Amino acid sequence: MYHKITPLFVNKLKKALGEDAVFTETETINAHAQDHTEKLFFPPEVVVKPKNTEGVSKVMKLCYKHRIPITVQGARSGLTGGALPVLGGVALSMERLDKILHIDAQNFQVTVEPAIITEHLQNVLKEQSLFYPPDPAGRGLSYIGGNIGTNAGGPRCVKYGVTRDYVLNLEIVLANGDIMWTGANTIKNSTGYNLTQLIVGSEGTLAVVTKIVLKLLPYPAFNLLMLAPFYSAEEACAAVAAIFQAGITPSTLEFMERDALDYAIRYVGSAPFTINPEHGGQLLIELDGNDMDALHKDCEKIAEVISRYRTDDILFADSDAQKNELWKLRRNMGNAMRQLSYAWVSEDTVVPRAKLPELLRGVKGIGEKMNFKSLCFGHVGDGNLHINIISDVPVTVEWRKEMDKAKRAIFELTKSLGGMLSAEHGVGYTQKGFMDVFFAENHIQILRGIKKVFDSRGILNPNKIF
Amino acid sequence: MYHKITPLFVNKLKKALGEDAVFTETETINAHAQDHTEKLFFPPEVVVKPKNTEGVSKVMKLCYKHRIPITVQGARSGLTGGALPVLGGVALSMERLDKILHIDAQNFQVTVEPAIITEHLQNVLKEQSLFYPPDPAGRGLSYIGGNIGTNAGGPRCVKYGVTRDYVLNLEIVLANGDIMWTGANTIKNSTGYNLTQLIVGSEGTLAVVTKIVLKLLPYPAFNLLMLAPFYSAEEACAAVAAIFQAGITPSTLEFMERDALDYAIRYVGSAPFTINPEHGGQLLIELDGNDMDALHKDCEKIAEVISRYRTDDILFADSDAQKNELWKLRRNMGNAMRQLSYAWVSEDTVVPRAKLPELLRGVKGIGEKMNFKSLCFGHVGDGNLHINIISDVPVTVEWRKEMDKAKRAIFELTKSLGGMLSAEHGVGYTQKGFMDVFFAENHIQILRGIKKVFDSRGILNPNKIF
Repeated sequence: MYHKITPLFVNKLKKALGEDAVFTETETINAHAQDHTEKLFFPPEVVVKPKNTEGVSKVMKLCYKHRIPITVQGARSGLTGGALPVLGGVALSMERLDKILHIDAQNFQVTVEPAIITEHLQNVLKEQSLFYPPDPAGRGLSYIGGNIGTNAGGPRCVKYGVTRDYVLNLEIVLANGDIMWTGANTIKNSTGYNLTQLIVGSEGTLAVVTKIVLKLLPYPAFNLLMLAPFYSAEEACAAVAAIFQAGITPSTLEFMERDALDYAIRYVGSAPFTINPEHGGQLLIELDGNDMDALHKDCEKIAEVISRYRTDDILFADSDAQKNELWKLRRNMGNAMRQLSYAWVSEDTVVPRAKLPELLRGVKGIGEKMNFKSLCFGHVGDGNLHINIISDVPVTVEWRKEMDKAKRAIFELTKSLGGMLSAEHGVGYTQKGFMDVFFAENHIQILRGIKKVFDSRGILNPNKIF
Repeated sequence: MYHKITPLFVNKLKKALGEDAVFTETETINAHAQDHTEKLFFPPEVVVKPKNTEGVSKVMKLCYKHRIPITVQGARSGLTGGALPVLGGVALSMERLDKILHIDAQNFQVTVEPAIITEHLQNVLKEQSLFYPPDPAGRGLSYIGGNIGTNAGGPRCVKYGVTRDYVLNLEIVLANGDIMWTGANTIKNSTGYNLTQLIVGSEGTLAVVTKIVLKLLPYPAFNLLMLAPFYSAEEACAAVAAIFQAGITPSTLEFMERDALDYAIRYVGSAPFTINPEHGGQLLIELDGNDMDALHKDCEKIAEVISRYRTDDILFADSDAQKNELWKLRRNMGNAMRQLSYAWVSEDTVVPRAKLPELLRGVKGIGEKMNFKSLCFGHVGDGNLHINIISDVPVTVEWRKEMDKAKRAIFELTKSLGGMLSAEHGVGYTQKGFMDVFFAENHIQILRGIKKVFDSRGILNPNKIF
């Protein structure tokens, strides 16, 4: 079905893109064989780094003609192996398409190339009082293009929505090299099927995104951050739904199990508080808006809701420095587990938020039965719990096989609670074996059919999702 | 390609659904041949009214087997003929699937059948302090299912987003009768292609929606409404972007051209103010939230922004009764034109909001050149301008042909401003002849390909969109 890459094909790539855009030496090949998913290594046969849409189109045309697998890559910070060239072929690195093309402050829009680092874009926009809310934990290195691939979320999405809620229009290159826009730069659009939203979250399997128009908001003037310790992790999860019931929508509502926090503190090296070992977990809650008085009122309401549970003193961050310290802990929680453990299996489950206590209890039960240690944290305001199975000792192949069974048990539990496989990380390579837990064959057939409409030869990021 | 309906087929329908769910007499046929689009009449050969998902599935299976066109219908309040059986066949009326199945206040979700009247659902939810924001002008009669078909909007969408932003999960019946859910009842989901968003806005051409899970918000405690008269309609449009620039997001921001308002007042019969003929247009601005002091501050800021233009005294609605009077005028603007004119051609253009003055000026220019009268109003906070060509005298076939040319000129202008054919009404039947203004053939081919994945025999609402 696919062809291997020949020296002749490499020469064609060089002729099309220039010598300095085509890489075959081991160092580059190896760098493009890995992402942030544990233990995966899939080397491409060649890495290309075009510098514009036309370059991308030229590569696609060649791969289309010669039936070569082509896998689009961003910052390679994904957690499911979604951007790894599992069948070899061409790794299409977008790293040179890294420009902010147009900030349209009048219409609250920005047009960018895909390889802008999310946080960098946010900082540039903030200087003009413009706000791009989605803030995945890896935003210090992830690209906007990758965020679109997985429909990335982050803490702030509980109030502001996820990546897809900010994507107005996309320039894409199709598998055959055709270039087109998916929609228009308008807030509303009911004209034909929503191709923009079909591309968002499609993990590079339908088309390559080369330009992105994002919707922006005015930057909120104020925010308040508080850390609320609960004696019981389950009660912390139960408080989440209660906060919303009180009519409040925090700008972030994050849960951190005590042991997960402990990892993060060890990794970061400091914290503006000490962990009480009797605490089961913490909620990190932020409010934002343009009226400080209104925020203080909401803050009091939240404190009242929390006081219904067995909690300790709430820490109110009293400076930007302290806020940053708290966020640094939260944002490095995944890194901490990856770096400080011998094995780290990360799941991205999501359930209706009132089901969180049941999910947490169920996961702990499965852990006891199957003998694994899980650390949980995540965007619980969205019902999105990151379940991390870790080992503090070296693991065997048998352990990994056992953990595949554990994952299946966790997903079956998730499904029974009305939940889903992935909230924001995507399916990629590591999770595709569990799609059958959630979808019947006729659903998968529709996904395959759509894939075929865009990519009749199946060259784009093959062997992913389904 | 399609078969006509035979008495034998009608008997099969009756056997599958019961005698009382199948209609062939003229009165019912004629009622299902029309919607709110002017001058269209497309009678189905038979009307069926199943009462649950299984009934819908049975009808689909029969139509699939016998290659009979089947057009799903809701309240038939659409403005583009999208739900009319233009090729005859079966009209699948959803009117008996009209139940609210489950209000899940804990998770801020509601599960409904498609034939709930939008406003009725909103009223029921409000009693539990729950908020479903999208509010199309026809919400007093339109069904939620139809709102999903066209991705309906409404005044409040400027702050809260459109229908698609509230659809979490859909039960659908495929063309072959298969029943499936598109996603999960979770706020976040990055698991495979977004079928939910593909169905929203697909105007009944991909599948039949039989159950809907909607996301809800806490009902905001307070709102303020003001009506700001501008001497120049173009300046009213220019003020729209300026209000957002000031960092304010109103919950509605509606424009009404003076003559459009005049129609509405004549139709409704009263107004809480008199029109000054020197005014060019008005902005109807609402703010909502949980803190009245914060709303008053935003109100002052808006008044300050507006004072930069040539404006008259702002009317602040001082009671719910007065708010209702103002909204009644706005909501009946389309009805007024349909009822009080000899011909009414309604367009649903959308542009980036700062381009509104240019769009308005351009439309007036085309009107002068092509000799038509246009009345404009709409959700200008979203850049969504409803352009209404009306005639106060009886019109000829030649006039209608001329107006098709006018529409094309308006759409070409819209496109040149970065805009789109439809913001919230859909493409349906009347607008499909203008898709070529906005999309190249390869785009249309992708839409056709997706259609084929869902509906290989092309029986579902044929001859629409493309």
